Amino acid sequence: MNRVITISREFGSGGREFARRLADSLNIAYYDREIISELAKRTNFTEEYIHKLGEHSPAPLFPITIGHTMSPVSNGLWEQQNALFIEQASLLKELAQKSDCIIVGRCADYCLKEFNPLKIRIYAELDSRIARCKSRAPQGEALSDREYKQRINDIDKNRAKYYQFYTGNKWSDPLNYDLCINTTDKDIKQLAAYFAEIFSK
Amino acid sequence: MNRVITISREFGSGGREFARRLADSLNIAYYDREIISELAKRTNFTEEYIHKLGEHSPAPLFPITIGHTMSPVSNGLWEQQNALFIEQASLLKELAQKSDCIIVGRCADYCLKEFNPLKIRIYAELDSRIARCKSRAPQGEALSDREYKQRINDIDKNRAKYYQFYTGNKWSDPLNYDLCINTTDKDIKQLAAYFAEIFSK
Repeated sequence: MNRVITISREFGSGGREFARRLADSLNIAYYDREIISELAKRTNFTEEYIHKLGEHSPAPLFPITIGHTMSPVSNGLWEQQNALFIEQASLLKELAQKSDCIIVGRCADYCLKEFNPLKIRIYAELDSRIARCKSRAPQGEALSDREYKQRINDIDKNRAKYYQFYTGNKWSDPLNYDLCINTTDKDIKQLAAYFAEIFSK
Repeated sequence: MNRVITISREFGSGGREFARRLADSLNIAYYDREIISELAKRTNFTEEYIHKLGEHSPAPLFPITIGHTMSPVSNGLWEQQNALFIEQASLLKELAQKSDCIIVGRCADYCLKEFNPLKIRIYAELDSRIARCKSRAPQGEALSDREYKQRINDIDKNRAKYYQFYTGNKWSDPLNYDLCINTTDKDIKQLAAYFAEIFSK
């Protein structure tokens, strides 16, 4: 069976960089946004739309049915999101079957259970995450610490909801992972090299 | 500065065995119950009594003082526990100054901040912890799963209270640690060897 490593990461924790560097060091495939591109090819959705759907938990908007016990419940967005999740899970399995790989986010730890992945969680203190976001901000972006905090909290809240909806588990619960790594004030390059050493054994 | 590794562990997670094996592999000092023996030598308390105090959070029993705004508050046990904690913290610093070492429990991650320790947390799923307790039960001990669960919960509740009282932090919060390792269904010997590899770099 191929070696599969899944990375769950708090926003601003450096989890994506950690994953990419680890994949480089181990010389194995790395999938993150590549998954969105592939899903766009397989569906009629744009990459941007898929990205948006993947960052929000499906929230069925039930129609007002007071007094109608048998009203049909239908919500196009909800169905789209679920269909996309199923397509995504199937793609993840294809990728895991193809070769050793590292997959970031997308409930991969849950969807790829049968591959017995090494499940890693990357987290850090809020101040450290704000500092990391600032240092990587695109030119011209000048948010206050408060605005970064808000953005971090919003994104993580949505990721947690998405994870909880599809897996039934709490996103931040260490029991869902084999290894939780605190990147507060750490150099991600060094940290990834450090772990690549043991993972390459 | 010496290398200091602190191990915080859930009861039944195999944290103590992990720490001992890691210390063996790295060929560095290992302190766990040795701390209690040394404290007994330095104080007038028995090892058993020190062990008991260390597993419970200090809970001041305030005398009933309704109507007496200036009543003196005194509690012998509370004072003993605090004095012992101070003595223990001082001993931990002595040990960390002496040589590279691994220290299990005792809020060492907090007391030894100035040594910049590698702070590890060992945890596991409840079922796995029950199974581990069973496999290590002394001859003649025949508890039910329910009784083991109760024991595990009681001990961890007290450890959490003790940690919270002296550090002001939540014992189970991953942010207090650099690395959290899930030992569910894992072979501790193999796991320790695995990490000894990177820690020896």
